[in-house]
Amino acid sequence: MSFVRSVIPEFEAANQKYAASFTKGDLPLPPGRKVAIVACMDARLDPARVLGLEEGDAHVIRNAGGRTVDGLRSLVISQQLLGTREIVIIHHTDCGMLTFTDTELKSKIRNELSENADHIAFLPFHDLRQSVLDDIEVIKKSPLVLDVPITGYIYDVKTGKLEKVQT
Amino acid sequence: MSFVRSVIPEFEAANQKYAASFTKGDLPLPPGRKVAIVACMDARLDPARVLGLEEGDAHVIRNAGGRTVDGLRSLVISQQLLGTREIVIIHHTDCGMLTFTDTELKSKIRNELSENADHIAFLPFHDLRQSVLDDIEVIKKSPLVLDVPITGYIYDVKTGKLEKVQT
Repeated sequence: MSFVRSVIPEFEAANQKYAASFTKGDLPLPPGRKVAIVACMDARLDPARVLGLEEGDAHVIRNAGGRTVDGLRSLVISQQLLGTREIVIIHHTDCGMLTFTDTELKSKIRNELSENADHIAFLPFHDLRQSVLDDIEVIKKSPLVLDVPITGYIYDVKTGKLEKVQT
Repeated sequence: MSFVRSVIPEFEAANQKYAASFTKGDLPLPPGRKVAIVACMDARLDPARVLGLEEGDAHVIRNAGGRTVDGLRSLVISQQLLGTREIVIIHHTDCGMLTFTDTELKSKIRNELSENADHIAFLPFHDLRQSVLDDIEVIKKSPLVLDVPITGYIYDVKTGKLEKVQT
């Protein structure tokens, strides 16, 4: 299948270690801090470490770019069934979404996979601050999302710092 | 807006602490371990702790249920633009997705928000093991996803242990 060494043995060894000292088996299903985070999938961003989250605290929704339009299904479930009442959005500097256009990626897929991806909106952006504002707006305008506090941040992958995006 | 105390002051204090001892400002954009994780947004599941991930290691895609059909856009970007060549799926015991049907949630939204959510598939499931198998199959069948190793797990929220789902 692949010449890359699989991560599986390391992941399973790490999990054994985690489980051996696991003490959080009694946490309830609804997030204790009643918040849903929407963040980019970027490898350098660990929302739990960045925000000080413990197991049980928050829903964490992640996708390429941390786009809220792609997280709406999850946000509705989070609010309607599991009681979250606040939303935090985290995009970040040096994001892959700043490096391509929808047309370019579709063309690459056509050339390299001989497939048509025209049915997918890949949701890249060229202005990081605007992408956070746009994603706040998507939530505010959705009639399926409750009117709750929304805070948007840009995470700086060079410094580890969050900068609030003022609306 | 809300009578719930906002998490923001605590999140910002936690981030100041994180940034104060931050030493990982030189990590490259592509995930070092060339793997994309697709996991549920559940608050009790922290993929980084469960798998021993450090900043820079892996893309982490999360949504309600850890459904791969909802992560396809992100998986394609992860593989085509950022070079990941392995996929790990994590669903978990006591998942909220086991507690409702699509029809029930749509009816609740109609009753409580007076809105129609018929355009959204909420993707609940009634068989946890089957949900992992289904999500592996979605990836295997997608012509937009490369033929890479895929491993599916059920995470036990009571023990902290991962159980591999044998295909």
